[in-house]
Amino acid sequence: MDFFNDLADFSTAEIRELITLACRLDEKPEPRALDGKVLSLLFLSPSLRTLVSFQSAMVRMGGGTFVVSPDMSIHGLESRSGIVMDGVAAEHIHEAVPVIASYGDAIGIRAFARRENLDDDLADREFRELIALADTPYINMESAINHPCQSLADWKTMDDLGLPANGGKFVQSWTWHPQPMPLAVPAATVQMAAMRGMDVTVLRPEGFELPDTIMDKARQAAAMSGGSVTETDDRADAMKDGQVIYVNSWSSARHYANKRAEDKFKLELRDWCVDEPWFENAASDCRFMHCLPVRRGVTVTDRILDGSRSVVVAEARNRMLVQMAVLHQMLSSS
Amino acid sequence: MDFFNDLADFSTAEIRELITLACRLDEKPEPRALDGKVLSLLFLSPSLRTLVSFQSAMVRMGGGTFVVSPDMSIHGLESRSGIVMDGVAAEHIHEAVPVIASYGDAIGIRAFARRENLDDDLADREFRELIALADTPYINMESAINHPCQSLADWKTMDDLGLPANGGKFVQSWTWHPQPMPLAVPAATVQMAAMRGMDVTVLRPEGFELPDTIMDKARQAAAMSGGSVTETDDRADAMKDGQVIYVNSWSSARHYANKRAEDKFKLELRDWCVDEPWFENAASDCRFMHCLPVRRGVTVTDRILDGSRSVVVAEARNRMLVQMAVLHQMLSSS
Amino acid sequence: MDFFNDLADFSTAEIRELITLACRLDEKPEPRALDGKVLSLLFLSPSLRTLVSFQSAMVRMGGGTFVVSPDMSIHGLESRSGIVMDGVAAEHIHEAVPVIASYGDAIGIRAFARRENLDDDLADREFRELIALADTPYINMESAINHPCQSLADWKTMDDLGLPANGGKFVQSWTWHPQPMPLAVPAATVQMAAMRGMDVTVLRPEGFELPDTIMDKARQAAAMSGGSVTETDDRADAMKDGQVIYVNSWSSARHYANKRAEDKFKLELRDWCVDEPWFENAASDCRFMHCLPVRRGVTVTDRILDGSRSVVVAEARNRMLVQMAVLHQMLSSS
Repeated sequence: MDFFNDLADFSTAEIRELITLACRLDEKPEPRALDGKVLSLLFLSPSLRTLVSFQSAMVRMGGGTFVVSPDMSIHGLESRSGIVMDGVAAEHIHEAVPVIASYGDAIGIRAFARRENLDDDLADREFRELIALADTPYINMESAINHPCQSLADWKTMDDLGLPANGGKFVQSWTWHPQPMPLAVPAATVQMAAMRGMDVTVLRPEGFELPDTIMDKARQAAAMSGGSVTETDDRADAMKDGQVIYVNSWSSARHYANKRAEDKFKLELRDWCVDEPWFENAASDCRFMHCLPVRRGVTVTDRILDGSRSVVVAEARNRMLVQMAVLHQMLSSS
Repeated sequence: MDFFNDLADFSTAEIRELITLACRLDEKPEPRALDGKVLSLLFLSPSLRTLVSFQSAMVRMGGGTFVVSPDMSIHGLESRSGIVMDGVAAEHIHEAVPVIASYGDAIGIRAFARRENLDDDLADREFRELIALADTPYINMESAINHPCQSLADWKTMDDLGLPANGGKFVQSWTWHPQPMPLAVPAATVQMAAMRGMDVTVLRPEGFELPDTIMDKARQAAAMSGGSVTETDDRADAMKDGQVIYVNSWSSARHYANKRAEDKFKLELRDWCVDEPWFENAASDCRFMHCLPVRRGVTVTDRILDGSRSVVVAEARNRMLVQMAVLHQMLSSS
Repeated sequence: MDFFNDLADFSTAEIRELITLACRLDEKPEPRALDGKVLSLLFLSPSLRTLVSFQSAMVRMGGGTFVVSPDMSIHGLESRSGIVMDGVAAEHIHEAVPVIASYGDAIGIRAFARRENLDDDLADREFRELIALADTPYINMESAINHPCQSLADWKTMDDLGLPANGGKFVQSWTWHPQPMPLAVPAATVQMAAMRGMDVTVLRPEGFELPDTIMDKARQAAAMSGGSVTETDDRADAMKDGQVIYVNSWSSARHYANKRAEDKFKLELRDWCVDEPWFENAASDCRFMHCLPVRRGVTVTDRILDGSRSVVVAEARNRMLVQMAVLHQMLSSS
């Protein structure tokens, strides 16, 4: 495997193979599989779970990692082209990225949306610029528009729970959040659930429609897998017979990169905080999923998060396991 | 071993076994004993020695670590219950700790005293709340009231020096420090010396008595081991025939969590800085011990620290070795 | 090998052996050569390349590292002698360095010039004080006046490119930089090229002569190797038939530790930015070398850095490889 950037690059069979490998590595550790192998970790945005789950993943197979974040360079990294660097930045990504990549056998890169231009972010422009500078296999550790490690972990989590693939009812709901949030997880999630063959309902208030490029891609996947993708702002209708609700917040495409306008627009939407009444028409054991970090009392109530519906810790642990599988396929010589 | 939280949880025989194992791992490295094993390190308070000694310990046995500190989360970790998280904190310890723990085979946690309420700190309330969230074996890397790794290292250091256990004279002295300091090391130290069967004198100015719960627990240990525990503010009397002076600063229980009152109260106590005259009546080769970091010219003079009495570097190196022994018992499959 | 501080401590044969070993480890990895071995990394100055290249180097041979930087201690490290530590610094290097060293099998130390006194920096006073506190083999990861890992990497890079040793024409040029820059790389580079037997021309504007101690030492090396060392401010003359231009900025010895005076002095020197016209009289395939980080549009133009002359990424990757060779010789038991 030369890159892991988008679940859509893989067939369902290939995804199932990765998940099978993740399960095997959980049950039968291979502490020497990646002897002496090094994964470079480049974070242009902060991280907790992604950082430590990759660090642990490499150690568990006999390799290791090193971490680069922009604050580690003497005065930050410059990324603009054609610039005269007589300010504070002492290093340009055009040197830093190839060098960092050359110290590892593969590189993981995280680069959030720049939030200047929706089309740039939908095209994952910054991430594509960065990986073009690296001469090794690479892993998308969350970009403006994708988060394949999270989605693979979520797929495995549903498998672990015995949630049906074809015909399973998956509700992906927007929730309130004090900040404008990225499109990466929502875009990756709808794609994943559609590829898994589920009947996906995107539940969101008006104005928070996912952009067409995201929905169209997911609908294409659903057409292949036998699933479906619809959207609505009717909560009761969406949750009816739901087997899992996957919760997230994302920015309004209408007010993209305009925090003040979005803040005003969502003033009345604080009731988009998941609580037990949401589950009235859902399947009795309907699960609650979230990629973390999650804001208690804002996105979801304590009783849901602390109750039996929540599988958020299992999702997070699966991050490590599926990343081990990806790294094993990417770096293991055997 | 499922937890390493308090020397008092172990018999003297078990402690001696750990020290023997530490010596063996020093002499005969086992670079594959913990192949692919991962120790999570969660620091809610800053650390130098503890951090790097655990990192080194795991590498020396073929495993590895990852580190989490609150500043690594996007905006810090929330720890209050029932809170509506619409401020800066993006993640709650109720999610963060189980996830972090799930990425390791064991977790080390450091959480200093909150210094709001003496009884809470004496009961180690914060540390107990944290470990209740983790589903793996755990190690206390210093809590409000304990520091078992330091104490085990100190015990080994005295063994290495041939300092007698039963009947050895151990002076544990308060010294001046510009800040109010925690009770963790003093509480752990008096317990350790009492368990080791030594005749312990706690030397401190009036107002700096160790709380009864600490002294009573140590006296119980002394009753079992054949040692003794007394306290005094008479320096000459305390130091008489002393074979080791273990130096630390700690907060006054009278003025707990009230820095201004403590500062005023200890204004006249700057002569509590260990220097050669303290050793007038002591055994000629009386040793100087300190857990580090130590403030030169404040807690102890340069000539003591740079002279032959000081064993502070040996104590620090033993931190790594005894932690290797604890980790070996906790994580080695053989 | 007990220390790696200065290429001048090694014979040409020993250097060639290290480079051969670096090539071998690149082609035939030895992922278990340093099983369970630990390298302590002490950075008293910030670092990117050095940090991650050493981290990767150790993992590639089965060992590991830990990192200490002054901001990790509770309130920084004190280094002055005879000080009463009642300010913010909670720990002194007299305790910190021996302890940190005792957790590793070798220690790498980075300590930039203090820039208070040129003679102190030329004598590498701070670095010598630090290594005197460590009781293990050590590696100079850049000091006030040396950077042997960089120079060994540069030597290997020229070997890889087939650049002739004896008789090869090496131009070492000063360039403009907004900050006063250290003498470490320029001093190490002129020494390296002289030891390699090359005809070295130091090209710099008047006022930026390298100090005599540096030039004399390089001339001695050239006398031994059959090379030569000259200096000039005539760019066309210097570049004539040049096979490689090694670019750097360094402080004026005339205005050492006086940024304001140096800033004023170099106001007119912004044309010391390498661009294609510099190469007019050079060998057609004359290479561009730089230790990185490099300021685009300030020290060198984009077209040089992005063109075929530039070998800066190869130099940086060789940092990791030659450090692996040094560590292998230092720590491998076989």
